[in-house]
Amino acid sequence: MAHALALAARGLGRTWPNPAVGCVIVRDGRILGRGWTQPGGRPHAERRALDQAGDAQGATAYVTLEPCAHHGHTPPCSEALIAARVARVVTALTDPDPRVSGKGHDMLRTAGIKVTENILAEQATRLNAGFLKRITQGLPFVTLKLATTIDGRIATASGESRWITGPQARRFVHGLRLSHDAVMVGSGTARADDPDLTARDIGATHQPLRILLDRTLSHRPDSRLGATARQHPVWILHAADAPHAAQQAWAATGARLLPCPAPDGRLDLTAALRLLAADGITRILSEGGGTIAAALIAGGLVDDLIHLSAGKLIGADGTAALGPLKLTHLADAPAFRLIGHQTLGPDTLSHWSLG
Amino acid sequence: MAHALALAARGLGRTWPNPAVGCVIVRDGRILGRGWTQPGGRPHAERRALDQAGDAQGATAYVTLEPCAHHGHTPPCSEALIAARVARVVTALTDPDPRVSGKGHDMLRTAGIKVTENILAEQATRLNAGFLKRITQGLPFVTLKLATTIDGRIATASGESRWITGPQARRFVHGLRLSHDAVMVGSGTARADDPDLTARDIGATHQPLRILLDRTLSHRPDSRLGATARQHPVWILHAADAPHAAQQAWAATGARLLPCPAPDGRLDLTAALRLLAADGITRILSEGGGTIAAALIAGGLVDDLIHLSAGKLIGADGTAALGPLKLTHLADAPAFRLIGHQTLGPDTLSHWSLG
Repeated sequence: MAHALALAARGLGRTWPNPAVGCVIVRDGRILGRGWTQPGGRPHAERRALDQAGDAQGATAYVTLEPCAHHGHTPPCSEALIAARVARVVTALTDPDPRVSGKGHDMLRTAGIKVTENILAEQATRLNAGFLKRITQGLPFVTLKLATTIDGRIATASGESRWITGPQARRFVHGLRLSHDAVMVGSGTARADDPDLTARDIGATHQPLRILLDRTLSHRPDSRLGATARQHPVWILHAADAPHAAQQAWAATGARLLPCPAPDGRLDLTAALRLLAADGITRILSEGGGTIAAALIAGGLVDDLIHLSAGKLIGADGTAALGPLKLTHLADAPAFRLIGHQTLGPDTLSHWSLG
Repeated sequence: MAHALALAARGLGRTWPNPAVGCVIVRDGRILGRGWTQPGGRPHAERRALDQAGDAQGATAYVTLEPCAHHGHTPPCSEALIAARVARVVTALTDPDPRVSGKGHDMLRTAGIKVTENILAEQATRLNAGFLKRITQGLPFVTLKLATTIDGRIATASGESRWITGPQARRFVHGLRLSHDAVMVGSGTARADDPDLTARDIGATHQPLRILLDRTLSHRPDSRLGATARQHPVWILHAADAPHAAQQAWAATGARLLPCPAPDGRLDLTAALRLLAADGITRILSEGGGTIAAALIAGGLVDDLIHLSAGKLIGADGTAALGPLKLTHLADAPAFRLIGHQTLGPDTLSHWSLG
C-alpha cells in the first residue's frame, strides 16, 4: 500500500476533479502491474495496473481509494477487478463520493473477492485531502506558502523581495506548484511582482492552473499572466462591478473571468473557493501576499502552511508575510501542527498542518 | 579531543572571565584523568585532570586550549604538565591572550614534550567564541534569542505573550541561560513581563548574571529583578543622567549600577558591551525585546541567533520580534548561516550564526 500511495502521489495536481489514486497488483510476492490516475483523471489507476498485469487471476490488488462502482466516463473499476478475477482487494479509504461510498467494496465482496479496508488510512487521507475536502465540504484544500526572513518579512520597506530564499527553496516551490491543481495570488502581489506562476526548471510536463484574486481587475492585461493566458489557463476572480473595460481586456487575453461576491469592498474568499471547488479544483497553493494570506487564515480556509525561512533579517519596517488578524487573545491564534522540517540549501522548510 | 571539548562545554557560563577548557589524559588507550575549568575559572582543566590521573608519566594530554604559561592565581598548567612528565600534549587552539599566545606550547616543547596543535580547531573556536571575542575584540559573544510565531510575532496587539512556545522550548531557553555568563533584556521587556531571568526547573546549581539595559531606570526596583538582586547579581546599564532617586532605589536593592554613554537619547550598545567585556563577561544571551534586538543587529553585535518558532499566527497587528532596521536594499540585510535545526516538542528551533 505504501508503494501504491507513492504511485498515487505522482498524479497530484493533474487528476482534478478526480482523486489521485495508486494501484499495485501482486501475486506470489511479485508485482504484476502498477498504475496511477492519469492526467485529467483518466484512465483510473486500477485500469492501468490491470492492463500492465495482463493476467491478474488470483492476485491481490492494493488500491489507495475504494474502486469506483458507477458508470461515468469509464466503466467502473470494481467491475474491471471482478472481470480480472483478482482474489483480494486491499484499500486505504472508503470513497466519500455518494456515487461510490461503500458500493465499490460491496460489489467486490458480492463477487466473492476478499476485501480488506483502511490500510494506511491516515496517509491516504492526507494524500487525498484535496479530493476529500472538495467532496465533503465543497472547498479546495489550501496550502499557504510563506517565504520569509527569520523575522517574518517578505520585502524591504522599499519593496525589494528578490530573492529572500535561495535557489533550492525556489525550486522546491516550483515542485510544490506542480503538486497542486492551481496556484493563487492576490492583485497586490501580481502588480508588485508581475509573476507568471509557472513551474520552471524542473522538467515540468504540465502547468498548474493560475488564479488571480483581483476584485477591481487592477492587474494589467499586458502583464506576464495576461501574455501567457492562452498557453496555460488563467482564471480571475473579480467583483461583478469591476470596470467593464478591464473585463473586456482580460477576456481578450484568453483568461477566464469568474465574478464573485464582494461585500464590504473585499472578495468573499470562502465564496471564491466554493466557486473553484464547484469547477473541480481540489488543491490550491496560495503564494501571496500578506493580505490574501491573512484573509485565508482569518476565514479558516488554510489547511497546510509551508514556511520557508532564509537566514536574513529585514526588521519591522519591512513588509509582513501576514496582514493583521485582529486577535485579542493568544488563545485565539490559529494553531498549526508540525508535520515536516528540513533544510533547503541555506534555508529551512517547516511544514505545518492545521490542528 | 572531542571528549575534551565536551568536558569543556560543561564550564560554559561559569568560568568567566576565564575560558572553559577541557582536558583528557590518556595512556595505553586508557583514560587516566578528565578535567574541566571549574566555576569561577579555577582550578584549570589540566590541574583537575592531572590530579585525577595521579601518575601521568608518559601519557598524552588532550587540551582544548593551549596550556597557560604565566603565573596568575595558579601556577601555570604548562609547568604542571612538565612536572607530571607527560610524553605528549595535543591542543585545539593557541591561546590569543598575550600572556600565553604560543608561550605555553614553547615551554612544553623546550621540556622535550611532543606537541600537536590545531586538532578540532574549528569546534574549539566555536566553543571558545566568547573568550576569544573578549580577548581579541574587547566585546562579549552575543546570542540573540527570538521566540516567535510562524509570522515572526512575539505578542498580540493587546500585549499577550505567554506562552507562544511550548514547555520544551522554554526549558531549552533555561538551559541556554546557564551556558551564558549573563542574560540581558531591555527596559520595555522588563516592564511588560517583570521577568526574573533565572534558569528554573532544570536542576541549575548556579544562575547567570542578569543584565538590564535601562537608560532612564524606568523599571521598578520592587520588580522581580529588584527583589532577587541580593540572591543573584543584577547589573543595570543606564545613562549617567538617569533620575537620582531611581539610582538610589536600585542601588538599595543590591543591584550594580553601570553608567553608560547614551548619545541621542539611546544607550550606546557597543559601549555597553565593551563595559561588560571589560568586567569579564564573555557570553551574553539577549532575550528581548524587539528594540534591543534591532539595536544589537544594526550595531553588528549579534554572533548567534536562536530562533524558536511555534506553529501559531498572530498577524501584522501583533508585536514584531525585531524592531525597524531601516534597510533600503535586500543585499544589506544581515545574513546568518544555519548551523543547527531541530524540533522542540511542538516547536522548531533554528540556530543561525553570523556570516
